[in-house]
Amino acid sequence: MNLNEIISGIKSVNSEARNVARVRNDVLIKPIGSLGKIEELSVKLAGITGDAFSSYQKKAIIIMCSDNGVYEEGVSVAPQMITLMQSTNFQKNITGVGVLSQLSNSDMVVVDIGINSSVQSEHFLNRKIRKGTSNVAKEPAMTKEEAFKAIEIGFEEVEKLHKKGYNVIGTGEMGIGNTTTASLIIMALTGCSVDRAAGKGAGLTEEQFKMKKQVIRNAYELHKPDAEDPIDVLSKLGGFDIAGLVGVFLGAAYHRLPVVIDGVISSSAALLAYKLCEASREYMIPSHFSEEPGYVIAMKTLGMEPYFNLNMRLGEGTGCPFTFLLIDAAESIIKKMATFDEVSMDNSTLVDIREDKASSA
Amino acid sequence: MNLNEIISGIKSVNSEARNVARVRNDVLIKPIGSLGKIEELSVKLAGITGDAFSSYQKKAIIIMCSDNGVYEEGVSVAPQMITLMQSTNFQKNITGVGVLSQLSNSDMVVVDIGINSSVQSEHFLNRKIRKGTSNVAKEPAMTKEEAFKAIEIGFEEVEKLHKKGYNVIGTGEMGIGNTTTASLIIMALTGCSVDRAAGKGAGLTEEQFKMKKQVIRNAYELHKPDAEDPIDVLSKLGGFDIAGLVGVFLGAAYHRLPVVIDGVISSSAALLAYKLCEASREYMIPSHFSEEPGYVIAMKTLGMEPYFNLNMRLGEGTGCPFTFLLIDAAESIIKKMATFDEVSMDNSTLVDIREDKASSA
Repeated sequence: MNLNEIISGIKSVNSEARNVARVRNDVLIKPIGSLGKIEELSVKLAGITGDAFSSYQKKAIIIMCSDNGVYEEGVSVAPQMITLMQSTNFQKNITGVGVLSQLSNSDMVVVDIGINSSVQSEHFLNRKIRKGTSNVAKEPAMTKEEAFKAIEIGFEEVEKLHKKGYNVIGTGEMGIGNTTTASLIIMALTGCSVDRAAGKGAGLTEEQFKMKKQVIRNAYELHKPDAEDPIDVLSKLGGFDIAGLVGVFLGAAYHRLPVVIDGVISSSAALLAYKLCEASREYMIPSHFSEEPGYVIAMKTLGMEPYFNLNMRLGEGTGCPFTFLLIDAAESIIKKMATFDEVSMDNSTLVDIREDKASSA
Repeated sequence: MNLNEIISGIKSVNSEARNVARVRNDVLIKPIGSLGKIEELSVKLAGITGDAFSSYQKKAIIIMCSDNGVYEEGVSVAPQMITLMQSTNFQKNITGVGVLSQLSNSDMVVVDIGINSSVQSEHFLNRKIRKGTSNVAKEPAMTKEEAFKAIEIGFEEVEKLHKKGYNVIGTGEMGIGNTTTASLIIMALTGCSVDRAAGKGAGLTEEQFKMKKQVIRNAYELHKPDAEDPIDVLSKLGGFDIAGLVGVFLGAAYHRLPVVIDGVISSSAALLAYKLCEASREYMIPSHFSEEPGYVIAMKTLGMEPYFNLNMRLGEGTGCPFTFLLIDAAESIIKKMATFDEVSMDNSTLVDIREDKASSA
């Protein structure tokens, strides 16, 4: 399916189902609104699926893995081979996201969309566009055709999960150098300065960080991305991982599935999806506050606030499992909590206490 | 065991185990510190139990249920019978905390420590001191002897759980009127004003809220609690639920178990426990940001920050299950994530990528 078909297939959420959820929340045995954002989330989920009592028990995090040509500018402390190494490790449940997704009963779909290696692995899907993007410090990261292709790949991976009955999608990524590309995209789409967009990634020294910001500044000047044209921004600056995640966000919206935003890289993809199709935002659910400064700008532009502040900056999709628990909570609250009517009809002790109070008065 | 024996049995946490956890976190396959508060939590837990690789799989929330004499001043919109009603409902898993504790594989221990009723129930333990406290607007809520007794009850309930192999404790409560008593205690211990301590509880109107603050102001003037004497503060102002939770916090510290703080009522008990025994604080773990203003003051005095902001104000222990997931995460990360050494010895793909890079260079 091409991008135009995807976008025109994305509809606004169901306001009737939202109302059903809202009314239900208000009759449960608790002060009205006292479960705060859990209640709001149940209303949001109802709008997304069109049913206030949907199930959200089949979850998967799609992890887009790709290398970035800009790596050769020295923007990361980690060796590039970490991209491949971690991509083969995710399904072994020994990484951050692997361990946390197990905890939240979530599966992972690991996608090689552009790892700089010919290695095939049973641990990830081969959907490689090419071995990493071009170096944005010197030339566009990818062609527009490659950007479209990467978005399609993301869309298709969501479609496969949808057909298998998955009902919650998380977003994750692996790609040494991708806080640089994410910062560039956030700058291009919001007009913010490099100082507000860029962070120290996996742990640069002050010196290295200064250099990273200079690389970003130069690349931005070189490409003069058009803020009104998300595909221009994405193809000039973005990684294949980010492009793939744009497809994941659009695919989730197309199939009416809630999709969880992770950290700064994921949020840059969410922002691109939103700029391509405003309604896609209604299907997105935030997770944790990322330590990378660009994240704050992206989320503000999306009009969203994270639920948690755990001072995390690992990426991979590690923020998603915590939000999955909130989704479980929202589902359980609306399905399992009793209403005041149910307990007052049912609860014989109420009569007892009335008598008891009368006798002790 | 009396209070002095309990307090003298509470020791500082184990700094050696904390170091083991810290060192382990730093060699896991992620940038150093990138799992933020999850890593900090694993270090804290190691100090609490004395073992960096402890298990935290048996969890229980102790819910102290009690009525408050101050109810007759009109400080709550909810009828007093809700205390009994909810206390019988918790174990049916149809309340907020019931539903959420199921999600986090946690059990509940529901304790009648002073419900205003003679009703017995299979759904809660009968440890009633008497049928609700006296009205703090007119007289001390309880005698000092009753305060000691309530603390002992909390301690004993933790001790029972400890003997059964439980390794994580949560705190919850049910008691119409208990945001009033909690606010009074927080005022007395911190010297803050009624405006900074009191909130609208389950949902007072502006008019009712004004009246509630006047009741609090008057009670405070009447009793002139001694900030340096936590038992004076507790007995004059507190509920049996809060007193019981003081015992829970001290009991957890005594038995070296992590204990999770819930909302404003729980935080007032945590603050009392801390004032009685400074070291007890090291065993406490925060959860969510409560909407009740006194919560912020209590947590600041404790030097703690909540992990979540879910705009919740239900109490019952509903904040604990989310923190239980963080505890699970901290345990899993330190036990299941691989180290860089492990993957580089083990991972043959690393050799592949090196060759691959060489050939494509």
